[in-house]
Amino acid sequence: MGDKLVSERNLRFLLYEVFDLESLTHCPMYEEHNKEIFEIVFETAVKMAYDLFLPCFAEMDRNPPEFSDNEVKVHPMVSTILKQLGEGGWISANAPFELGGQQLPHLLTAACRFIFSAANYSASVYAFLNTGAAHLIESFGSQELIDTYIPKIFEGEWQGTMALTEPQAGSSLTDISTRAVPTDQDYYRISGQKIFISAADHTGTENVVHLMLAKIKGAPPGVKGISLFVVPKKRIEKDGSLVSNDVNTAGIYHKLGYRGSPIVQLSLGERDDCRGYLVGEPNKGLSYMFQMMNEGRIDVAIGAAGIASAAYYASLEYAKTRPQGRKLSAKDPTSPPVPIINHPDVKRMLFFQRAVVDGSVALLLQCSKYVDMIKVSEGEEKERYSMLLDILTPAAKTYPSEMGVLSVSQGLQCLGGYGYCDEFPLEQYYRDVRIHPIHEGTTGIQGLDLLGRKVTMNNGRAFSLYIDEVEKAVRKAETFPGLEFHAHRLRESLERLRDVTAHLLRIADSGETERFLADAVPYLELFGIVTVAWQWLLQGSAAFRVQSEGLSEAETRFYQGKLRTMDYFYRYELPKADGLVRLLTESEGLTAKAEESCFDD
Amino acid sequence: MGDKLVSERNLRFLLYEVFDLESLTHCPMYEEHNKEIFEIVFETAVKMAYDLFLPCFAEMDRNPPEFSDNEVKVHPMVSTILKQLGEGGWISANAPFELGGQQLPHLLTAACRFIFSAANYSASVYAFLNTGAAHLIESFGSQELIDTYIPKIFEGEWQGTMALTEPQAGSSLTDISTRAVPTDQDYYRISGQKIFISAADHTGTENVVHLMLAKIKGAPPGVKGISLFVVPKKRIEKDGSLVSNDVNTAGIYHKLGYRGSPIVQLSLGERDDCRGYLVGEPNKGLSYMFQMMNEGRIDVAIGAAGIASAAYYASLEYAKTRPQGRKLSAKDPTSPPVPIINHPDVKRMLFFQRAVVDGSVALLLQCSKYVDMIKVSEGEEKERYSMLLDILTPAAKTYPSEMGVLSVSQGLQCLGGYGYCDEFPLEQYYRDVRIHPIHEGTTGIQGLDLLGRKVTMNNGRAFSLYIDEVEKAVRKAETFPGLEFHAHRLRESLERLRDVTAHLLRIADSGETERFLADAVPYLELFGIVTVAWQWLLQGSAAFRVQSEGLSEAETRFYQGKLRTMDYFYRYELPKADGLVRLLTESEGLTAKAEESCFDD
Repeated sequence: MGDKLVSERNLRFLLYEVFDLESLTHCPMYEEHNKEIFEIVFETAVKMAYDLFLPCFAEMDRNPPEFSDNEVKVHPMVSTILKQLGEGGWISANAPFELGGQQLPHLLTAACRFIFSAANYSASVYAFLNTGAAHLIESFGSQELIDTYIPKIFEGEWQGTMALTEPQAGSSLTDISTRAVPTDQDYYRISGQKIFISAADHTGTENVVHLMLAKIKGAPPGVKGISLFVVPKKRIEKDGSLVSNDVNTAGIYHKLGYRGSPIVQLSLGERDDCRGYLVGEPNKGLSYMFQMMNEGRIDVAIGAAGIASAAYYASLEYAKTRPQGRKLSAKDPTSPPVPIINHPDVKRMLFFQRAVVDGSVALLLQCSKYVDMIKVSEGEEKERYSMLLDILTPAAKTYPSEMGVLSVSQGLQCLGGYGYCDEFPLEQYYRDVRIHPIHEGTTGIQGLDLLGRKVTMNNGRAFSLYIDEVEKAVRKAETFPGLEFHAHRLRESLERLRDVTAHLLRIADSGETERFLADAVPYLELFGIVTVAWQWLLQGSAAFRVQSEGLSEAETRFYQGKLRTMDYFYRYELPKADGLVRLLTESEGLTAKAEESCFDD
Repeated sequence: MGDKLVSERNLRFLLYEVFDLESLTHCPMYEEHNKEIFEIVFETAVKMAYDLFLPCFAEMDRNPPEFSDNEVKVHPMVSTILKQLGEGGWISANAPFELGGQQLPHLLTAACRFIFSAANYSASVYAFLNTGAAHLIESFGSQELIDTYIPKIFEGEWQGTMALTEPQAGSSLTDISTRAVPTDQDYYRISGQKIFISAADHTGTENVVHLMLAKIKGAPPGVKGISLFVVPKKRIEKDGSLVSNDVNTAGIYHKLGYRGSPIVQLSLGERDDCRGYLVGEPNKGLSYMFQMMNEGRIDVAIGAAGIASAAYYASLEYAKTRPQGRKLSAKDPTSPPVPIINHPDVKRMLFFQRAVVDGSVALLLQCSKYVDMIKVSEGEEKERYSMLLDILTPAAKTYPSEMGVLSVSQGLQCLGGYGYCDEFPLEQYYRDVRIHPIHEGTTGIQGLDLLGRKVTMNNGRAFSLYIDEVEKAVRKAETFPGLEFHAHRLRESLERLRDVTAHLLRIADSGETERFLADAVPYLELFGIVTVAWQWLLQGSAAFRVQSEGLSEAETRFYQGKLRTMDYFYRYELPKADGLVRLLTESEGLTAKAEESCFDD
């Protein structure tokens, strides 16, 4: 199979042993599926990763999109991949049967996306965007919009996008100024500028369907005046032909990495002939987007984890095969050198990567399972899962993204000078993964979302539910001899997270909003570490359960490696919480208080 | 002046107010200098940074070296810069007057190198290499070698290099296999392969002089059999003409960053006609190299700090001018957006960068001052400074390099999506700075050097001297009201560093070498944080002293900014020591114990 990208064994462990994918088949929504089907889907994803995505991984980076002759020229594989993912039902994998979808659990498809991302993140993005755009239309659009756009998007014939960002607004969606003027027809006239729009124009597709935020003329200021539109690159005439819709590409960006996917600047309505079709009700655009955002953010983080996984296995392969140096305790220079995996510091760098990757994937599958549980449950239960997903999402976006950058960097470091050169893929992973703390809401935005919105919402109810979930895992782990240390440490960390949260909420209650939110990012970091520790304890407990059973040697090694990596996380990563707790307790709102003049020189 | 690269005010603060550069003029070695001369040198360096180095910064990256027609073609500015640095006396800045040098303090020239690195690290490396090569010849070479090579190297006519690494050896110098066969002439016949040699061949120079490690036929195995040679690319005939010396370029590497400088693969003696001239005595090559290594490592770290400084000021400029969003406490969407520097989280990212940059520069100037003190002192005092330099060097190499990577990453993050695009220089800084934890000894090697060699050497004497220095700074800071918190925190951290060191030394005493050194890198990280906290306290104390004097408004703001950044370091960075202490106490030698089979899947 050549280059290992992910551990299939580990994914099956998470899907079946930790998150019990099969249990979903007891719900009416997923009752037509069974483990055999899941396995076929899984194995097909692995095959596509190697056959379709991986071969053009470096090539798409070396030949990035070019904007010339008014076209965004992309690698020829873009069209092939988009169509094959359409034909294979991957774009519509989670959509209901009645829309032509596969109605597969998110838990499973998240694992497949992770596999695709590990093989070629840039190439995987096109189809993910289609799924997201279709989901918005499906959830809030009219039947006409559904009938007109969804089939082509699902087939991979047309490209879907999310068009939010504008030059003057950036992360501040309040300041969006793209205008939508009502007409006496079924459309609005759109004018404005959009920047940093992924895959917003390219030669790999016949048409592009933008799900675009804009303000209807006369709408209230701020976020309460934002509406959602479908704005196609080419609109459909009554006779079915496609004509230009005055959506113009102003340029593309030259990026550090993630080069297989064009990021486009759009200029709308230069000839005053750009038509937009309202999705749902006016002025509700942002709330529609927010309902999709959890999934978009999880997708982005899956990408980061996928890249980090591929980087981990590339560095592991190098570490196993590169002889250099001797054991620290055996310095005889005439003895043969050993593979560098024998050096404790190299093992440390490998454990770190695996702890980040497996921890991130677990957290992302946990969130994906909550997405499924929201779909299959009702009433109070549905609300409970929704709140858990809500509060986990900022950390599920951020931990894999921020730690993914560090993880790939350690992978690169394992190769020394070779890691810095393009003979090995590490340098590309290093460039590619750096986008993740930026796109789909920067880490700063995630921090504000967690502390300013999620922790406080419903009177702290989501936070309590989260604590309950973690405590449940602690209580279970306490019953396994050998996990006492870990259960104890997680309980202690959770306690301190609770104390810090209470401390911050007291600041909020006193009305010091700036100070309350000043350390939202370190708070998010603490929350992320505790959350991934929880995911590691779940994995440790699942691994522990089978320890006593009669296992093959390979299986025994897998579970032992899993338990060692959990132990690594608890002894090397979780301690970082100590420093963060101290920071959050002693910072005294320094960054809120500091005057701009501090930075005069 | 355009883009700000460094704070000249801060450099003068460090040079004159913290490290008292002028006091060096009381020593005979530096008595011919005075503050006016220092200022001329400093201002010339700033001017050259903007006029010579900066204009080709991006260009050299976009047009990296090419290997074709048996030549390594580099940017035309390489030759210009090398010669101008030669003519200006920069290459020989620290060399004694009698060798044609400027005999300037290292403290001052380190600051100048920092300025050059901030403007264009790749371009600055050529001349740094010359200084290092000349210093080796000057210290250990015969008068003939000195006369033959040093003038041309100092003039920037010839390129000097350090040729250590080999394909099968990497960081393990023990395994060097380049051979030197004695002849009946004054030279050895050299044959072998060298890889990753910076500037080892290029069109910007007439000749290249390699300071090369090789093993003389019949030498003892391991590091005790390594000798040092001068191996020129072209050797000098009796009539003064240059002829090929059978030093062949096998290729160059295509790198993530640091692209202005070619990294070359050499093949020596393919026609059995490569002559090498022994430097000093046989089999002492590694000890000669080690004596230079402190300075080489400090140079590399200066490069990292320089890049991080340029990245900091680029992100600061953006943060001051980019309007986006509103104060967290004033969400009225009709109010105008504020520059993002108003957001506490952006201030956090700026403080982080400045804390890393100023802290790193302080540490590197501290080391450079020790280099000067070693030169100007004798006997016990000289030994004391040597030991302080020895024990500080691994952290002085690593903290700026590892934290420089994170610092530049935060700079990039300040720009959001723009940071990821090549319209701004952040993405290049991000690529460039990643070399620093690798070259001139990886972080792993630095960890082993600190814990395995420096902490234990002379019965722990260097470590005690280090503790004394830090304690002295604590006692002084305790006398300033307003620094009690910081003095107290540093004392506490130092205490814990001492405890952890004792804990690790007990493991060493028990004979568990693997386990003792397994966590050398986290130990180095802890040591680095405490060390930089010490440097921040020195800066805080210096800033505090002048607080009460009648100062201009700009000066007041400078000192306030300095104190705020120190406060940031103590409240946001120093707490990381807590987690590292716990890790080092509770790791139980996990990475030493873990079997390779853990990584089977």
